[in-house]
Amino acid sequence: MSASRTPRRIDGMARAPTSALGDRLDAIRAATVQLAAPLSAEDCALQSMPDASPVKWHLAHTTWFFETFVLERFIRDYRHFDPRYRVLFNSYYNAVGDRHPRPDRGLLSRPALDEVHAYRRHVEGHLAPLVAQADDDAELASLLELGLQHEQQHQELILTDLKHLLSRNPLQPAYMERWPLTPVKPRASRWIGFTGGMVTVGHHGAGFCFDNEQPRHQVVLSPFELASYPVTHGDFLAFIDDGGYTRPDLWLSLGLDIVQAQRWTAPMYWERRDGRWTTFTLRGRVEIDPATPMTHVSYFEADAFARWAGARLPTEFEWEAGAADCAIDGNFRDSGALHPLATRMDPPQGNPSQIFGDVWEWTGSSYAPYPGFAAAPGAVGEYNGKFMCNQYVLRGGSCATPRSHIRATYRNFFPPEARWQFSGVRLARDPR
Amino acid sequence: MSASRTPRRIDGMARAPTSALGDRLDAIRAATVQLAAPLSAEDCALQSMPDASPVKWHLAHTTWFFETFVLERFIRDYRHFDPRYRVLFNSYYNAVGDRHPRPDRGLLSRPALDEVHAYRRHVEGHLAPLVAQADDDAELASLLELGLQHEQQHQELILTDLKHLLSRNPLQPAYMERWPLTPVKPRASRWIGFTGGMVTVGHHGAGFCFDNEQPRHQVVLSPFELASYPVTHGDFLAFIDDGGYTRPDLWLSLGLDIVQAQRWTAPMYWERRDGRWTTFTLRGRVEIDPATPMTHVSYFEADAFARWAGARLPTEFEWEAGAADCAIDGNFRDSGALHPLATRMDPPQGNPSQIFGDVWEWTGSSYAPYPGFAAAPGAVGEYNGKFMCNQYVLRGGSCATPRSHIRATYRNFFPPEARWQFSGVRLARDPR
Amino acid sequence: MSASRTPRRIDGMARAPTSALGDRLDAIRAATVQLAAPLSAEDCALQSMPDASPVKWHLAHTTWFFETFVLERFIRDYRHFDPRYRVLFNSYYNAVGDRHPRPDRGLLSRPALDEVHAYRRHVEGHLAPLVAQADDDAELASLLELGLQHEQQHQELILTDLKHLLSRNPLQPAYMERWPLTPVKPRASRWIGFTGGMVTVGHHGAGFCFDNEQPRHQVVLSPFELASYPVTHGDFLAFIDDGGYTRPDLWLSLGLDIVQAQRWTAPMYWERRDGRWTTFTLRGRVEIDPATPMTHVSYFEADAFARWAGARLPTEFEWEAGAADCAIDGNFRDSGALHPLATRMDPPQGNPSQIFGDVWEWTGSSYAPYPGFAAAPGAVGEYNGKFMCNQYVLRGGSCATPRSHIRATYRNFFPPEARWQFSGVRLARDPR
Amino acid sequence: MSASRTPRRIDGMARAPTSALGDRLDAIRAATVQLAAPLSAEDCALQSMPDASPVKWHLAHTTWFFETFVLERFIRDYRHFDPRYRVLFNSYYNAVGDRHPRPDRGLLSRPALDEVHAYRRHVEGHLAPLVAQADDDAELASLLELGLQHEQQHQELILTDLKHLLSRNPLQPAYMERWPLTPVKPRASRWIGFTGGMVTVGHHGAGFCFDNEQPRHQVVLSPFELASYPVTHGDFLAFIDDGGYTRPDLWLSLGLDIVQAQRWTAPMYWERRDGRWTTFTLRGRVEIDPATPMTHVSYFEADAFARWAGARLPTEFEWEAGAADCAIDGNFRDSGALHPLATRMDPPQGNPSQIFGDVWEWTGSSYAPYPGFAAAPGAVGEYNGKFMCNQYVLRGGSCATPRSHIRATYRNFFPPEARWQFSGVRLARDPR
Repeated sequence: MSASRTPRRIDGMARAPTSALGDRLDAIRAATVQLAAPLSAEDCALQSMPDASPVKWHLAHTTWFFETFVLERFIRDYRHFDPRYRVLFNSYYNAVGDRHPRPDRGLLSRPALDEVHAYRRHVEGHLAPLVAQADDDAELASLLELGLQHEQQHQELILTDLKHLLSRNPLQPAYMERWPLTPVKPRASRWIGFTGGMVTVGHHGAGFCFDNEQPRHQVVLSPFELASYPVTHGDFLAFIDDGGYTRPDLWLSLGLDIVQAQRWTAPMYWERRDGRWTTFTLRGRVEIDPATPMTHVSYFEADAFARWAGARLPTEFEWEAGAADCAIDGNFRDSGALHPLATRMDPPQGNPSQIFGDVWEWTGSSYAPYPGFAAAPGAVGEYNGKFMCNQYVLRGGSCATPRSHIRATYRNFFPPEARWQFSGVRLARDPR
Repeated sequence: MSASRTPRRIDGMARAPTSALGDRLDAIRAATVQLAAPLSAEDCALQSMPDASPVKWHLAHTTWFFETFVLERFIRDYRHFDPRYRVLFNSYYNAVGDRHPRPDRGLLSRPALDEVHAYRRHVEGHLAPLVAQADDDAELASLLELGLQHEQQHQELILTDLKHLLSRNPLQPAYMERWPLTPVKPRASRWIGFTGGMVTVGHHGAGFCFDNEQPRHQVVLSPFELASYPVTHGDFLAFIDDGGYTRPDLWLSLGLDIVQAQRWTAPMYWERRDGRWTTFTLRGRVEIDPATPMTHVSYFEADAFARWAGARLPTEFEWEAGAADCAIDGNFRDSGALHPLATRMDPPQGNPSQIFGDVWEWTGSSYAPYPGFAAAPGAVGEYNGKFMCNQYVLRGGSCATPRSHIRATYRNFFPPEARWQFSGVRLARDPR
Repeated sequence: MSASRTPRRIDGMARAPTSALGDRLDAIRAATVQLAAPLSAEDCALQSMPDASPVKWHLAHTTWFFETFVLERFIRDYRHFDPRYRVLFNSYYNAVGDRHPRPDRGLLSRPALDEVHAYRRHVEGHLAPLVAQADDDAELASLLELGLQHEQQHQELILTDLKHLLSRNPLQPAYMERWPLTPVKPRASRWIGFTGGMVTVGHHGAGFCFDNEQPRHQVVLSPFELASYPVTHGDFLAFIDDGGYTRPDLWLSLGLDIVQAQRWTAPMYWERRDGRWTTFTLRGRVEIDPATPMTHVSYFEADAFARWAGARLPTEFEWEAGAADCAIDGNFRDSGALHPLATRMDPPQGNPSQIFGDVWEWTGSSYAPYPGFAAAPGAVGEYNGKFMCNQYVLRGGSCATPRSHIRATYRNFFPPEARWQFSGVRLARDPR
Repeated sequence: MSASRTPRRIDGMARAPTSALGDRLDAIRAATVQLAAPLSAEDCALQSMPDASPVKWHLAHTTWFFETFVLERFIRDYRHFDPRYRVLFNSYYNAVGDRHPRPDRGLLSRPALDEVHAYRRHVEGHLAPLVAQADDDAELASLLELGLQHEQQHQELILTDLKHLLSRNPLQPAYMERWPLTPVKPRASRWIGFTGGMVTVGHHGAGFCFDNEQPRHQVVLSPFELASYPVTHGDFLAFIDDGGYTRPDLWLSLGLDIVQAQRWTAPMYWERRDGRWTTFTLRGRVEIDPATPMTHVSYFEADAFARWAGARLPTEFEWEAGAADCAIDGNFRDSGALHPLATRMDPPQGNPSQIFGDVWEWTGSSYAPYPGFAAAPGAVGEYNGKFMCNQYVLRGGSCATPRSHIRATYRNFFPPEARWQFSGVRLARDPR
């Protein structure tokens, strides 16, 4: 989710009635503010790396999005809250005009956090009357929906970017208090077989989707197997203990380069203290819990782990086929854990477990357009297509994703070296 | 071809009789020496960038390959020409042991070129008696064949790496004398339709192939169209003249970053002199000939050009389906031109023209394993699999490829920013 | 002033009576807080480049200095405000132990600004009773004095680092409101002759000095001349208009490298808007005023300007001899201008004008130890000596320096490429 | 000697009679060719780092110098050997015009070594008749002399640059065969006192000097002491064994940065093999000989060693005063050792030993102009002045310097991190 997404606008798509849209607008916008509520203005202003943005920037950019793509278009003579924000909070839309450089987002002590909140209220005040018109205006409805989906994506980034920032502080401050977790007995993973054949992938139906989930189309799959559970911290410890980071035969060539250049010896946020592995969480630094799903690994580490385990990563279509019958249920942001959790449930009969929530699962598929894909004209078309190079697809959502945001056809994507998202691994293999 | 390739060893594969193998060994080894013949020891020793290797290194490494994978294994108590070469001329085989760093290949004034030629003869002297045994030893035969295919790949790299080196010299020296070329009238490209459906891709049959061309498997293709000719220098000039390099909407995001960071305003080797565009060739600097196929573009430029033209790049499977009925005929290294040529022939009825030879054609496909792909065990397994990340597939061979080396299922691959190969563009599109 | 300084501790040095020390402690500590008063917590937390530190860090580090070098030593069983600050706010004292990396000072949203203010008060509460003992304890008195001088240096850095941060914000916020300045007629500079000969340089007398100002010693000077006024913005505009930045013959070789690599075409903070040159100040962006002393130039630019003007930079000893009879008077921080000002006064008879205040004046002298210089033992010895390499000496103080902090023997120093200090130029030359 | 030098042209300077000049021209030019004689064309073409140049480049550049500054000026309608060489072999003279970038000197396989030798002969053929005119033309004589001095400087660089290249080859080839050296008993160094006072430094008299050795002028020196011998390899081993590279208190701040960034644990070319320290020499890799003068240390290492030893580096004027009465005698290139040698001689009564030859001795003096220094007009003026920033002065010549090239006032200079020259250390201290 290094990027915002745009929905495929379908004129005839079934829409929630206006009142529902208004309610969701209120709820989603409020949820964003709620995420920032425990934070100081200082917490919200800092940027810890070029890939991550300050919380304040997310608060402003999600507002800029509505202002630029909705208010500018649907309100005659709309007066900007501050015309300079048009450049300042543009993320990457060349067609909108200039933008403030991404690595410099942490140089903005002004506008102050308070002003950004005022900006949010200003834009919300202008959005409210438009919601009533959306019943009769498919394009307006579509752009409002897009704004909400976009905002949900940035809610997840608020959490992952903030986590990175806090982790860089030697004081290791926590975003929220420690949770009293009771340990869970690890469960052995087993292989679940799928027959493959001709399957249909991509979004269909009335609900919202991004343009990169379409066109729906057919692919041929060989028979394959998926692990019943995602890889756990305990599994990954075994890989480390077996010298996983020092065995060239396990790694993609580019992965080995980065392991050696960056001296990776463990996943992101891991640190060995007093002989025990710990990891940094939004609830502070904690000891590794072997039963919880593994997270904060790059594609390279996911791939190397799979090779070590005698398996491989699933393709995104194997994953989608495997998830087709699974309920969208699991450990999402809504649970408040903000960290992957060990499961207490038996897997549903014949279906993979924990396939939604907990951790995004790296697939072996390069992020590419579906056959017949066409980006929308104008700035909206910049959301997805232009990122389809040197990125890999992740599926299933994480403990930082709002439950209402995810579906089986949802395609997240990140460069193979990215580790600061809640990214994890589910193994696949060819039948023996 | 940033990498060597290993063949899929198939025990029962039909092999040429030994005498033929011996003849090919002699011929291919001699061809390598022949390529270096016009060059001085100085020409052969220099390295112009980390991606390119000195000619002397290629001469030695192709020999190292036979020594390490054939002589060490099949000759009892084999005595190395120089045991230190085992490290010095290892390219990237971790399982063989240490290796000399790639960017430092240009620091080796010793061994002298003469010694490397002596090394070649030493190894050839030991190979000759083994050829006779290959009839009865499938593994030996397979490794000898692999060595030959590997050497042919490096023959192409000798030419492209040398071209880069000569281009960096302000004296702009030519490798060979200028050819008297008569101009050819450009031909308009047209669209050739393909029905798609379920098609089978990947290598089959008795001949040699690399492991990345297998397993043969089925894919589903939507109907598509291919351009009858590759994009020409004239086509690309129109793109430049239309501001192609300065329009963000045409570029992948990563491509735009590199265009701006490297200040690209034209393909590699192009230079504007006295108001006219010229390009550097192995026969010196020449003026652009609009009728010749375009070359020395990155994947990013190929993709941006296609978008500008209202088209797209073909997938590698569309390309393979489109080439299935084409004869392997064209402007290969064997022609001696060492530069793409304008065609004088009418395209064969219903088939794409110039699909083999002239220029490698970028496809929109990320380089990935075929379903069921498994790398061979040991060092040989490092040839292909470990490079399957952040690279894109090119098809069809070029004016620097030996004709006997190419086939419709052959998968070349380079990172999307690479430009020093003879890489070009064939357009595809969805039917209107 | 990239570094803190330590005083040369002289046992018998005349000290102000305790009450005066206590008053100065209160006044200087309060002045630091006063500087930050107009700023938000966000303003105080950000770091705009590795060379510059957040205001909050300055507030904490100056306090750390008293805690580490005074409280830890003179209070038995002293309890730290927070023991983790010992590492967090150490700037570069290896002998004290680990330290937080300088480029990461902008990653600290915690401790909050409020906590840092509490830290300041905590340490001040412990310092107050110690002041009474300082009459009878020369070492204690010396370290308290050092802490005050150190804090004054950081007061200047607060202003220059903040200026850099605000300048990077596209909103171009001002630290203080615009001043109504009335224009001043520029005065022509003239040359003032000095006879040179054997002169004595370095600090003497009872007042405080840093160790780098001693031992006082003799040097031989040839006759020389100094300009009566510092170089003005108008002078520098003439240099630019004459192609100064594009003429290699004017530049030191390293300077030319940086001009070309960084594409310098004007001093720091200058920007051409609507055909007119502007500069950024702590009072916002303003148009260039030709009569004001030039500032924000590197040593390289100062040197190139001097060569262009047919002159040179003075050595630090020429400067010191030239300033010997000048009153310490001028546009210091105390004036509140926070920007160099054009003078309205006639120069004093036979003395250089504006030699103190307005802008630090680059000298041609590499920062080196005086003969017999010896750093103090322990951490205190790290203040000056270890920076005596590849830096150049500046003299005279600036509009951001407290008037009570400067003297004729004071040696400031920065690398030759530094531009974010209030650094300017006074010309010298050999008599004609 | 990162740079060529220009002499201060003194019209009335006493010159050797023409015949002597002609003989020296022949001898010095022949010596350059002789240095390259044991090398292959490949050896001469490679460049191992941006700071070092290929031997072929040195052969050409020293010729370019005569062509550009003598032939172009004194021969009417002079026809260049190849006009393109004017750019190709210009080192850094902006006033001459464009130049080939320094880091790209290793990209020139053409012109071939043979052609460069032909270039040398061509220019020498034109120089010969001019020598006869030099008796009557002071400027011509001066420029010819400059060309010879310049060529001698590049002779030293040929050896140091070649040494670096060979050292980077894993085969560790030797330039010349091993010398049978008999071990020498180390001699204890002792301190030699000097009274200081007013001394006169800089060149005087009839012989040649570079412009940076003038004007001769007076300086005041405090009493000081110099070590009777340079620091030896044995001395430096004791520093390493005492943890010298890991003790921050011993290092300049910039030095510590580079030690940590580059992971320096020993001087350049040192390598620990089988538990013993070895170093690379022009006669191959050898074990450390404790009695020989230390070499291949940076200014930072020289300074840290001195601090560890309770001493300091001499200033360049202390060095010059200390060397004033020493004969120019020692281990120069003329000895053929090409490596510092342990001395067998007792030091001359009251004078430092081995002060000339063996190793250049770092001084604590930043490279700066002498009072009244003025660069010559035109390109010739670019030789010295523009490098007077962030470099430190070395004195005394080395085992790679021609004996006839050195004198007590000679100022060599390199950046403080440079290690590939034969740079060493002589300690100084204040009297106790």
